[in-house]
Amino acid sequence: MREIRLLLVGFGNVGDAFLQLLQRKQKTLRKDYALKVLVTGVCTGTHGGALDPGGLDLEQLLQTKRNQSQLNGLSVEVIPQDTLSFINACEADIMLEISPVSYSDGQPAIRFIHEGLSKGMHVITANKGPIVHAYHELRALAREVQRAFLFESTVMDGAPILSMWRETLPAAHLTSFRGILNSTTNFILNEMESSVSFDAAVQKAQERGIAETDPTGDLEGWDAAIKVGVLSTVLMGTPLLPNEVERKGIMGLSQTQITDALASGKRWKLICMAEREGAKVRGVVKPIQVTSSDPLFHVSGTSSAVTFHTDVLGPLTVLEENPGPDTTAYGMLADLLNSL
Amino acid sequence: MREIRLLLVGFGNVGDAFLQLLQRKQKTLRKDYALKVLVTGVCTGTHGGALDPGGLDLEQLLQTKRNQSQLNGLSVEVIPQDTLSFINACEADIMLEISPVSYSDGQPAIRFIHEGLSKGMHVITANKGPIVHAYHELRALAREVQRAFLFESTVMDGAPILSMWRETLPAAHLTSFRGILNSTTNFILNEMESSVSFDAAVQKAQERGIAETDPTGDLEGWDAAIKVGVLSTVLMGTPLLPNEVERKGIMGLSQTQITDALASGKRWKLICMAEREGAKVRGVVKPIQVTSSDPLFHVSGTSSAVTFHTDVLGPLTVLEENPGPDTTAYGMLADLLNSL
Repeated sequence: MREIRLLLVGFGNVGDAFLQLLQRKQKTLRKDYALKVLVTGVCTGTHGGALDPGGLDLEQLLQTKRNQSQLNGLSVEVIPQDTLSFINACEADIMLEISPVSYSDGQPAIRFIHEGLSKGMHVITANKGPIVHAYHELRALAREVQRAFLFESTVMDGAPILSMWRETLPAAHLTSFRGILNSTTNFILNEMESSVSFDAAVQKAQERGIAETDPTGDLEGWDAAIKVGVLSTVLMGTPLLPNEVERKGIMGLSQTQITDALASGKRWKLICMAEREGAKVRGVVKPIQVTSSDPLFHVSGTSSAVTFHTDVLGPLTVLEENPGPDTTAYGMLADLLNSL
Repeated sequence: MREIRLLLVGFGNVGDAFLQLLQRKQKTLRKDYALKVLVTGVCTGTHGGALDPGGLDLEQLLQTKRNQSQLNGLSVEVIPQDTLSFINACEADIMLEISPVSYSDGQPAIRFIHEGLSKGMHVITANKGPIVHAYHELRALAREVQRAFLFESTVMDGAPILSMWRETLPAAHLTSFRGILNSTTNFILNEMESSVSFDAAVQKAQERGIAETDPTGDLEGWDAAIKVGVLSTVLMGTPLLPNEVERKGIMGLSQTQITDALASGKRWKLICMAEREGAKVRGVVKPIQVTSSDPLFHVSGTSSAVTFHTDVLGPLTVLEENPGPDTTAYGMLADLLNSL
């Protein structure tokens, strides 16, 4: 039985779902992977942190979080003041970086990941910022220290898009891709087709935990643009920052446009695309009317899909239904198992 | 630069496409994988064979095949009389087994694969017979001799279904799947929706090289059933033979049924399904009317798709458009690179 110690940097919905998944999969991990997984550190921005080299109690962590209490009461060690010191103080084999995204510079997550790798931990992140802003630098560091740096959950949550490319499509050349990668806007457009107003649809998305309190990142297309950037950077080998993606959100779309389209057999979708143009990649996020012959026409609610165009297969589409914190958590567990 | 020697057992459309792909990807293999791939043996049932430890000329092989000539003229060694002796005589690192499928017992391919592994070769097959009839035995042998035994192209051609499960979905439990896995029948049903008769649709499929001269295996659902068997055997850990799958082909469907369904917004599809029932798996192949809310409704022409239901993600669908010998060939190249 091999013991693996985890450090969680960030403990929001995804961290919550991850701990629940760990509990649920404990037996499988022991039986099929001979692994005992301990959480030896949890560090948050506003709810303190906890360290226990012997392993924190997962149920207590979840309860404390749900009570909105400080985690410090669970700690057997004094908690360092700042996150970098926390990462340095925690005895762990793998760091899960799940702090909030920064579209503009990827910080402070890049510094956290740098620190984790430098300390000799494998690093798994669900954070898109570090990938678009520092992928090549962080990958080089990971190689230098011979540690894994994985990030399956950054695009299409836990659906294995990135590992599919890494592990199963050798010698294939990605020429372009096209998809629906933002759940919130797809849900909102879907609601508006049933004559729900934009504002009411946004509110419904917030109530269901699909949209954040400040939904600007989704509505203005930033989330979609950074995902295009991740796929271009990682799968096409061409760095592409969110602000380099031609980007138009869904806020200019009127209720009438949406119901008119539907009446003529079309649907407005926030389409994400990228294609090679010489040595560069042109990335685009914009609302487009698609017809029923388009596979993306049928992607409803919070579902996501992407079609890859390559030099070796016909168009290859992956569709994920009902993504959410649980599937993001699974993507991180998959990364964890693939890092060993 | 590492030299890899290949033996092809069988040289039909897939073998032809594979050699062309090898030619096309030669530079990538050298540059990105430091590999030089030689074909040192090709063995066929009716067109003789050729052996050259120094590597056969790919262009000559392709030309000879297209002229329907015997391959023996290209050989620098005397050709053994039977396939098993041929496998034994050929100096190769990897054997590609691409002989015709046997639904009933998987032979003689099982013997060929057994011989290749015993001789110390990695074995890659596009043949479903050996998987449903001898997967566990052949996998055990491969482990014993520490060689790879891979078969990506057996289901959905080169779309990475099997390697996706092997490499990217650790600790996930497959509870059921549902898909369209036979291109020929999907093409025929599609044609019949445009009022083409069953016989004319079959003929069109044959003319396009989609259906074989004897299309019974496709029309009676055997090809679909054996694919259900492969997925159950490999992904659900439960052996399932083609004759253990509840199977109904498309031959009972009338033109009227198909156009009537279409008129009421439905489509007849040959659906493949499997679900766990206690320790067993129930596999079903049968024509079903699906509505437009079903992702399989939109799988047209020769495309294939499968939706996986697991305990960790929402429904996960993979759709492949325009499969054919080229994509089967790519699946084998992917296996080749993954075996090293």
